Amino acid sequence: MDNKEKALKCHEEWNGKLETIAKSKVNSREDLAIAYTPGVAEPCKVIAEDKEAAYKYTWKANTVAVVSDGSAVLGLGNIGPYAAMPVMEGKCVLFKEFGNVNAVPICLDTQDTEEIIAAVKNIAPGFGGINLEDISAPRCFEIEERLKEMLDIPVFHDDQHGTAIVVLAGIINSLRLTGKKKEDCKVVVNGAGSAGVAITKLLLTYGFTHVTMCDRLGIIGKDYPNLNWMQQKMTEVTNLENAKGTLADALKGADIFVGVSAPNIVTAEMVSSMNKDSILFAMANPVPEIMPDVAKAAGARVVGTGRSDFPNQINNVVAFPGIFKGALEGRATQITEEMKLAAAEALAGLVSDEELNDDFIMPEAFDPRVAAVVSEAVKSHI
Amino acid sequence: MDNKEKALKCHEEWNGKLETIAKSKVNSREDLAIAYTPGVAEPCKVIAEDKEAAYKYTWKANTVAVVSDGSAVLGLGNIGPYAAMPVMEGKCVLFKEFGNVNAVPICLDTQDTEEIIAAVKNIAPGFGGINLEDISAPRCFEIEERLKEMLDIPVFHDDQHGTAIVVLAGIINSLRLTGKKKEDCKVVVNGAGSAGVAITKLLLTYGFTHVTMCDRLGIIGKDYPNLNWMQQKMTEVTNLENAKGTLADALKGADIFVGVSAPNIVTAEMVSSMNKDSILFAMANPVPEIMPDVAKAAGARVVGTGRSDFPNQINNVVAFPGIFKGALEGRATQITEEMKLAAAEALAGLVSDEELNDDFIMPEAFDPRVAAVVSEAVKSHI
Repeated sequence: MDNKEKALKCHEEWNGKLETIAKSKVNSREDLAIAYTPGVAEPCKVIAEDKEAAYKYTWKANTVAVVSDGSAVLGLGNIGPYAAMPVMEGKCVLFKEFGNVNAVPICLDTQDTEEIIAAVKNIAPGFGGINLEDISAPRCFEIEERLKEMLDIPVFHDDQHGTAIVVLAGIINSLRLTGKKKEDCKVVVNGAGSAGVAITKLLLTYGFTHVTMCDRLGIIGKDYPNLNWMQQKMTEVTNLENAKGTLADALKGADIFVGVSAPNIVTAEMVSSMNKDSILFAMANPVPEIMPDVAKAAGARVVGTGRSDFPNQINNVVAFPGIFKGALEGRATQITEEMKLAAAEALAGLVSDEELNDDFIMPEAFDPRVAAVVSEAVKSHI
Repeated sequence: MDNKEKALKCHEEWNGKLETIAKSKVNSREDLAIAYTPGVAEPCKVIAEDKEAAYKYTWKANTVAVVSDGSAVLGLGNIGPYAAMPVMEGKCVLFKEFGNVNAVPICLDTQDTEEIIAAVKNIAPGFGGINLEDISAPRCFEIEERLKEMLDIPVFHDDQHGTAIVVLAGIINSLRLTGKKKEDCKVVVNGAGSAGVAITKLLLTYGFTHVTMCDRLGIIGKDYPNLNWMQQKMTEVTNLENAKGTLADALKGADIFVGVSAPNIVTAEMVSSMNKDSILFAMANPVPEIMPDVAKAAGARVVGTGRSDFPNQINNVVAFPGIFKGALEGRATQITEEMKLAAAEALAGLVSDEELNDDFIMPEAFDPRVAAVVSEAVKSHI
């Protein structure tokens, strides 16, 4: 049985990768009178007076909604809310297993921006945080921004910020290895969807000054056709010299390539044209923008991908469980830029000088320290 | 420490009476590759082709959303979504403990009918059923009716139908005891909110022909002021002689009283004016419409209340877990009138002729047969 068959068989046996269980058992009338009527009226009355008490008496304190409209799922695209459920359940499993955070998959039967915002706003009282997931760009930007304004709990689009945090962590360690300085690096981000935009923003916030975004038609600048409002906004802070050309042109003399785009679009020649000690994160899944062995042979120093079967896997699972664990424990009302930077630095810091090498720039997903240090980093910036 | 203090202390220790847990553990890269990427893509692709497969591969098969807007919670009234959470969590606990059904509390930050309908419709893909809870009348009627039309999963307002089912079960057994025939009984239902309306409807469906509803101003008829649209509708099928008067007038010569109203509004004199072998379900909580000892002394034969410290507790917990267990197992798309009647008869049938007496007309909440027979009754009518 190959892995695809095994995945189907396991999912059928699980019939849901999650379940809800009762922490308050009801084995007697006495139990019932405490956990349900009439006893339950007591915490209700306290919360009615002070809604903050919801964090003391309900699961809001440690529970996240994982919300998707199924419009941009994995590499599968717009498969809708029913088909998105296995992914959202999987995400919820990771929240619990890695961060000890309860998580509930919420797959929405609408792809209308206003309806999504209304639904999330309306279900928010019972949750301590909202993890947006696999919502296509550019709607994801507006949905997240508006929900952040409306709600007093953290709203975090993981495809954007989780990805940006792990990429930054990998880049921080690549700089440690190569001795390059962020101020001097030319960075090319290929793919101007949710992840590409968020990575670019976080790299700029971290202190990179020379970032160029590319998409299917090449270098993005003020004259690039059909930019959405967010991409338009990005032209104000990237490619400041307003260069034009192809991805190949962008990569000439570049130090860092970050790909969140499509398989096999970076050639050995392009890598050879980059600066010495070049750093490539080729994260298209499952086939990266360039295979690591090809990139290395063409002169790349550090190569990361999204895959677990190559070195340097760049995987959100080292970020989001700890991010929400810290935000919930510290009762953060937002995930700020400072928290994201601190999380990236904490992740990078888990790789000691002795461990750090071209093929080991990221902590392992199963390293038990990961969620702990990320959550502490978040909490220290609340 | 009294029970109120104990309830607060326990709720603080639980800090949420529920948690989500992973059925699919992720202890290795191999596990991750099956439960999450890339393996998870396989069930997604199957569901994208056929959304029915969601029942095979996701927790939709066995998971209910318990949805409230916090507008009519227990005896506490309109306490809002935050304060309603302990009750909804409690309900979810009962779903799991009694019916082995996963349940998620969803407390909505709106009391607008259209917004509630939109939110529930939009979160529905990930759930196998919707249990509406503690939503005030008459909005609850429209919300339930419209959602039933929109959705292909069961929608069930427990305050209405759960209550109606257990009341009918109790009445069926009271008829067994007293030898009264449903066609001959005069029934008075006091309280014309969600429960009173649903009880009346189900009694009529079961075959009672003479039902009179009362509310604060007495007998409800066509001239009763300020009826809502549902109460108006009820005047077409109740009080057919269009009688007027007080609750006391209604009870003269009545056989059955069902109270879902207010404490201490039924007097001994009123009970004495009822027919021989009168049956009273005085379910106002925590103080019933009349105390059982008073009612008995005044001539009542069977008295039930909502309380666990008196005989004949009329408690929804014997209904809703089995209702949804059966509906989910049988993949019902609606909870029909036939299912409700069958559930009531199944509940009544659990009390054997030997056990049945004036002080024992209902099966115990902790009787392990309860959810099983109710779910079978529902399934046999799909």
